[in-house]
Amino acid sequence: MRAMAKTSPSPGAELIEVPIPAPGDGEVLIRVRATAICGTDVHIYEWDRWAQERVRTPRIFGHEFCGDVVEVGPGVKKLKPGQFVSVETHTACGHCFFCKTGEAHICAEAKIVGVDIDGCFAEYVVVPEFNCWIWDIDIPDEVAAIQDPFGNAVHTAFATCLSARTVMITGMGPIGLCAIRIAKAAGATAVFVTDVSEYRLELARKLGANLAINPSEEDPVAAVRAATDGLGADVLLEMAGHPSAIRQGLKSLRKAGFAALLGIPSGPVELELAEDVIFRSLTLVGINGRRMFDTWYKARTLLKSGLDITPVITHRLSLWEQFDEGMELMKAGKCGKVILLP
Amino acid sequence: MRAMAKTSPSPGAELIEVPIPAPGDGEVLIRVRATAICGTDVHIYEWDRWAQERVRTPRIFGHEFCGDVVEVGPGVKKLKPGQFVSVETHTACGHCFFCKTGEAHICAEAKIVGVDIDGCFAEYVVVPEFNCWIWDIDIPDEVAAIQDPFGNAVHTAFATCLSARTVMITGMGPIGLCAIRIAKAAGATAVFVTDVSEYRLELARKLGANLAINPSEEDPVAAVRAATDGLGADVLLEMAGHPSAIRQGLKSLRKAGFAALLGIPSGPVELELAEDVIFRSLTLVGINGRRMFDTWYKARTLLKSGLDITPVITHRLSLWEQFDEGMELMKAGKCGKVILLP
Amino acid sequence: MRAMAKTSPSPGAELIEVPIPAPGDGEVLIRVRATAICGTDVHIYEWDRWAQERVRTPRIFGHEFCGDVVEVGPGVKKLKPGQFVSVETHTACGHCFFCKTGEAHICAEAKIVGVDIDGCFAEYVVVPEFNCWIWDIDIPDEVAAIQDPFGNAVHTAFATCLSARTVMITGMGPIGLCAIRIAKAAGATAVFVTDVSEYRLELARKLGANLAINPSEEDPVAAVRAATDGLGADVLLEMAGHPSAIRQGLKSLRKAGFAALLGIPSGPVELELAEDVIFRSLTLVGINGRRMFDTWYKARTLLKSGLDITPVITHRLSLWEQFDEGMELMKAGKCGKVILLP
Amino acid sequence: MRAMAKTSPSPGAELIEVPIPAPGDGEVLIRVRATAICGTDVHIYEWDRWAQERVRTPRIFGHEFCGDVVEVGPGVKKLKPGQFVSVETHTACGHCFFCKTGEAHICAEAKIVGVDIDGCFAEYVVVPEFNCWIWDIDIPDEVAAIQDPFGNAVHTAFATCLSARTVMITGMGPIGLCAIRIAKAAGATAVFVTDVSEYRLELARKLGANLAINPSEEDPVAAVRAATDGLGADVLLEMAGHPSAIRQGLKSLRKAGFAALLGIPSGPVELELAEDVIFRSLTLVGINGRRMFDTWYKARTLLKSGLDITPVITHRLSLWEQFDEGMELMKAGKCGKVILLP
Repeated sequence: MRAMAKTSPSPGAELIEVPIPAPGDGEVLIRVRATAICGTDVHIYEWDRWAQERVRTPRIFGHEFCGDVVEVGPGVKKLKPGQFVSVETHTACGHCFFCKTGEAHICAEAKIVGVDIDGCFAEYVVVPEFNCWIWDIDIPDEVAAIQDPFGNAVHTAFATCLSARTVMITGMGPIGLCAIRIAKAAGATAVFVTDVSEYRLELARKLGANLAINPSEEDPVAAVRAATDGLGADVLLEMAGHPSAIRQGLKSLRKAGFAALLGIPSGPVELELAEDVIFRSLTLVGINGRRMFDTWYKARTLLKSGLDITPVITHRLSLWEQFDEGMELMKAGKCGKVILLP
Repeated sequence: MRAMAKTSPSPGAELIEVPIPAPGDGEVLIRVRATAICGTDVHIYEWDRWAQERVRTPRIFGHEFCGDVVEVGPGVKKLKPGQFVSVETHTACGHCFFCKTGEAHICAEAKIVGVDIDGCFAEYVVVPEFNCWIWDIDIPDEVAAIQDPFGNAVHTAFATCLSARTVMITGMGPIGLCAIRIAKAAGATAVFVTDVSEYRLELARKLGANLAINPSEEDPVAAVRAATDGLGADVLLEMAGHPSAIRQGLKSLRKAGFAALLGIPSGPVELELAEDVIFRSLTLVGINGRRMFDTWYKARTLLKSGLDITPVITHRLSLWEQFDEGMELMKAGKCGKVILLP
Repeated sequence: MRAMAKTSPSPGAELIEVPIPAPGDGEVLIRVRATAICGTDVHIYEWDRWAQERVRTPRIFGHEFCGDVVEVGPGVKKLKPGQFVSVETHTACGHCFFCKTGEAHICAEAKIVGVDIDGCFAEYVVVPEFNCWIWDIDIPDEVAAIQDPFGNAVHTAFATCLSARTVMITGMGPIGLCAIRIAKAAGATAVFVTDVSEYRLELARKLGANLAINPSEEDPVAAVRAATDGLGADVLLEMAGHPSAIRQGLKSLRKAGFAALLGIPSGPVELELAEDVIFRSLTLVGINGRRMFDTWYKARTLLKSGLDITPVITHRLSLWEQFDEGMELMKAGKCGKVILLP
Repeated sequence: MRAMAKTSPSPGAELIEVPIPAPGDGEVLIRVRATAICGTDVHIYEWDRWAQERVRTPRIFGHEFCGDVVEVGPGVKKLKPGQFVSVETHTACGHCFFCKTGEAHICAEAKIVGVDIDGCFAEYVVVPEFNCWIWDIDIPDEVAAIQDPFGNAVHTAFATCLSARTVMITGMGPIGLCAIRIAKAAGATAVFVTDVSEYRLELARKLGANLAINPSEEDPVAAVRAATDGLGADVLLEMAGHPSAIRQGLKSLRKAGFAALLGIPSGPVELELAEDVIFRSLTLVGINGRRMFDTWYKARTLLKSGLDITPVITHRLSLWEQFDEGMELMKAGKCGKVILLP
């Protein structure tokens, strides 16, 4: 089969031919229908410091995808060839304290598809049965392919109840863009967003943001306070991971406000803990992956009830012929979600 | 001033002339703009067993209203003549365990306006400053007049998070009708309602119910299961108070479902606790009044963001000339909310 | 091997000889070290209406036990012969909505060991690997044998936070008795208990109850109010399942109190919902089984930190020679927990 | 009357004679029985940057105290001369969003006794009736005098449920010391503490800490992991306010752990948000003051049930003659709580 792989510890990726992998105990083989580029893939492609430390070559990367089960390994209980699935990217050991108490998303032994084991930038991929989400509703391939980032957004937005609340979202990458529609569907009365890219702010407006703020042009804290009778936003969904976005987000919250932190800063972050968090009695919650499988049920419910995230998808490219083009689009930030079709 | 009062311990009400009351310490005098009939008022009007035990005559009744502050008593801190207010119907002592811990709505010494002290079926009424909600947004008089039942619905609907959940509401009186729109605004994906009155089911459909079930014609439990892939509803808002509605509501819930109970049964209720509640791990919460003033802030937020409950209001009558007509409408159930204008 | 079985649909039990069962896919064979009698076993022994409807004969019953893994079936991932385990009595399908969202204890397809499949009143028993709790701390056999009822008590007591709260426990069977020590360990400032058996009230006092009330002799509602400055208890743990105990428990709670309901009434229960639950804003939660495996971790933590439930165990009998004697003790209520040793 | 006051914007304090103040509307006059030194008082005494910016002179400082009501102003509803009270240090406006929704402890207009208005280092002090906590149980004067820091500890410890959990407390000032006993009473199975002062670690051991770690001698993260089977602590109560204590505390938590932050850092704090908070799904909550009056009720419950914090009190000095000595003790950290008696 064909696959896009990191064949040596250096920037770039290579189209290779390898044998179709065989599903092991409790695993299934999936024929990939559609895949998408995550920021993590760009890190691997560029071979930054994080990638150098984490990824072993050769490695087929990519982890956002959907496809059809074509073969099941021994010990598979429920999945059958022919079923259409999306895939939870984080594996779970099933035996640690977290797996045993309903928190498999923070499994002590978690591996990530496309990072620690071979991924989906390929014609076929093998994953554990446990990680497969069987679709029983009608859903476009390209939406099924991006359940990983959509699920991140759902997990973050459902970290607290958004009904009748004002919500600030910092960072308008694909996850932040999805979060706009999710917050509205969850009952938020207003959604304020920030990003330094006008391209993405425009996408945010299209997706329904009530206020799209460019922090390089105006003060987001002042803008959010002005939009909330001076009180501040009730909830922050932090999806930028940039220190100043995090600080601005926290400062934009009202006293006793709630912040769900998903964006990953690349280094330590300096916070005014006393003024911003302690005196103002904020609650901060770190968000990781998607709850298995509460988040997936919530995502299905939202999609089934009509939530449309297709405007987040801005490009459809060929996995084999336009791979580098997709990576360049991501690096330039001139895109929402980029779909790669095998 | 004119007032509709219960002047003797017997059915009916009488139009009387009495002096305008004077606000005492911490109290304000309000000129009534609009008032509405609650089921409680019908009980007092009919002089049923509950009314005979609770109400002392002479008593001006009525407790749903809005009006303008015209005079403030000594010790009033913030209210000023000219301000337009709705009024929280339950007084709070301010000193008991509940008042001191943010639960004034279940004050150990609570009194009810129009039941234990003189009410709003009058040109003027005196209430504690504490109970006044100052309007700082534009709101029609008739909507401001029904904040007590609207607030009941808000308090009940916000007892748990409704985002991305299916909601069953039993009982389509004005509170149940308001709850349809509130549940939708809070993010419910579907709202199933029951009532034995076709008139009220028709109102419910108009307000957005996804399924309006008449239990005298079809089995609500089966209907709700059919509408939820066999699982059952996530949340029940019980607003009928009738034993069979309560039982049907509980049986319609999924395992680990949540029930907020607001409707007041007139006697003991027989429940299949083992099968319906314990084995299915339900949570039941009793709802009383409106949280002071969390519920009021939520109500304001919903109204400000465009929630429209005017379809719940079906009749506008004269307080002085159509009082008995209003009471008869209520007894026949051929109405949503009935407004009485002084 | 020897086993105590219900061989025909009639009262009693029979000592039989059957082949040692073989573990199937994902299952393990356990040699029983100690077992105990649950009220459910008495129902099966007596062959009451519930047993007639639920249990198919022949059936080896019994479900409270501990033992040593002696053989593992294919597909078993972690368990090894020689490991000492207690067993979660409820099986879980692993694929339903509840299993997939951290609520396997209310699995839509749950079976109960010793009721729906063969149980532990035998020398050997086969159970799914998933249901085994491996002991990594020192624990007496007889304590390991009663993790099912102890876990019921832990699950119920941890349904809300008991720190600095007053707790009422209705029903002093073994679960209620365990709950006394658990509530104290969890930080309850006082524990009030009720039972109609003086024998069990005496055990309750021994286990640390601050107030042991016999409702046939004094009014528990008045007694609890007197012990709480007139306020009422903060939390009720209902473990009797008797209608009057349930009503007394609810009436003993303060406004906004919390009730965890574990006891199983044998028929419908009449409640004063308006007066006791709605106006007083109670929260009621139905408790089922043990959370897998949050409850087990909590149980381990409590035992490891020194919680001693051995006073709950009042009798140690021979599984083979004193079986009927154990059943009679249970029927007479003249016991705490009865251990049966093979 | 005599009072210790900051009479000019410079270090130190002066014993002055001033008229006894008169209680205004809704206020009461209290004769001080006992008072204590808070870290805040040391900042004012030393006249550091924070004090220079916040405090206007002349100002009688001090805010931890108890005393007897000797006179009530107009509009006082419940307090009577002769009642023995402790005083909540933060005033509340009663009208802002927070005051109106049960969160008066973060009132938008809060003032602090002894900082923004005259305090308790005096023979008499005037405070709002609202702020007085009437004692109805027997309690030593010196314990009644330190309800402000004790309440801080209660508020922090009750931010989550500690039953059957391991708790780390960073910072063994008087609040941290109180928190040891509170955590134990609340059901914590083990309490690990850190401080750089051996004097305070010794006090911590005396109060029941299971592990008292000096971070200048051993790695607290490793020590806590070793004491928790490698998992990490369940809960952090941060009471040091020092950046490295905060970082060590967060790193000592298990995944999905909970941190309540009370200690006030003097400047920005650099956190490894990605590694420590986001990937590990921590929850952080900022704690401010004491909930009015949930925290006070909890404090009373704990004291009434026998919790003893007197070992935290290490010095009893004369307010008039040993004031400077008390301040020096505090600066040297060679003390627990220092009581000053008028």
